[in-house]
Amino acid sequence: MNNPAVTITICRTCRPAGDEQPDPPGAALSRATVAKVAESNVARSVQVYEIACLSACTRACSATVSGRGKFSYVIGGLTPDDASDLVAFAEAHAASADGIPPWRARPERIRKNTIARLPPHGTPHPLVEQPSAATTPEEAS
Amino acid sequence: MNNPAVTITICRTCRPAGDEQPDPPGAALSRATVAKVAESNVARSVQVYEIACLSACTRACSATVSGRGKFSYVIGGLTPDDASDLVAFAEAHAASADGIPPWRARPERIRKNTIARLPPHGTPHPLVEQPSAATTPEEAS
Repeated sequence: MNNPAVTITICRTCRPAGDEQPDPPGAALSRATVAKVAESNVARSVQVYEIACLSACTRACSATVSGRGKFSYVIGGLTPDDASDLVAFAEAHAASADGIPPWRARPERIRKNTIARLPPHGTPHPLVEQPSAATTPEEAS
Repeated sequence: MNNPAVTITICRTCRPAGDEQPDPPGAALSRATVAKVAESNVARSVQVYEIACLSACTRACSATVSGRGKFSYVIGGLTPDDASDLVAFAEAHAASADGIPPWRARPERIRKNTIARLPPHGTPHPLVEQPSAATTPEEAS
């Protein structure tokens, strides 16, 4: 495995509830994303992978975007038509220092379908704080 | 930041829709989790952090569990009463080689409220595959 700046991992088995196409939309999204990366200038920095399940089945199709020492994103509700937006988001993720792209750099489809963002393990970030367990507030009355 | 085996990051601002307590349930979950870790044997391997938002607001309260080179998990629908289960899951995550604890080692509340699992960036795993873009299937008819 090489070490690209950004990894997109797409659930290749993802299909929305009721979908019965022989080819899962997740697989089609993966192919469309691979093609989009290949035809763009981001092929060196963005690597696409597939996985059989991201445990986000209720929000199919789903994908993750991550990079070393950066925040990761989980995005759901995607269709094969969203490959361009997914790659544009990955590009913005690669360009960001901490994996949190500026709001305006995130395609609307990605903004509206973000399921979660995860802080990197073992890399400090201003948003991630030690709990102040000693200052437990009084129980809310 | 030290380098524990597992990081639990809890959204301290999380509150389910309609909740109007002055103390967000997310903050209470964080305090309960810190206390649970402190009283258990996992304090060396599990570190708890807080964050202002995990972008999983529709599934409050939410938390992530991650470790270096391992799968990460996002869990939602949590309450302060779930601190024990969250710590038990983190312990199982720490004990697993790849961050995917055996099904039976995952508390039921965690299993039922898993929002997503994310593969590690830059670490190969049998579940993560290169897409076979050359073998595009025929369009489903």
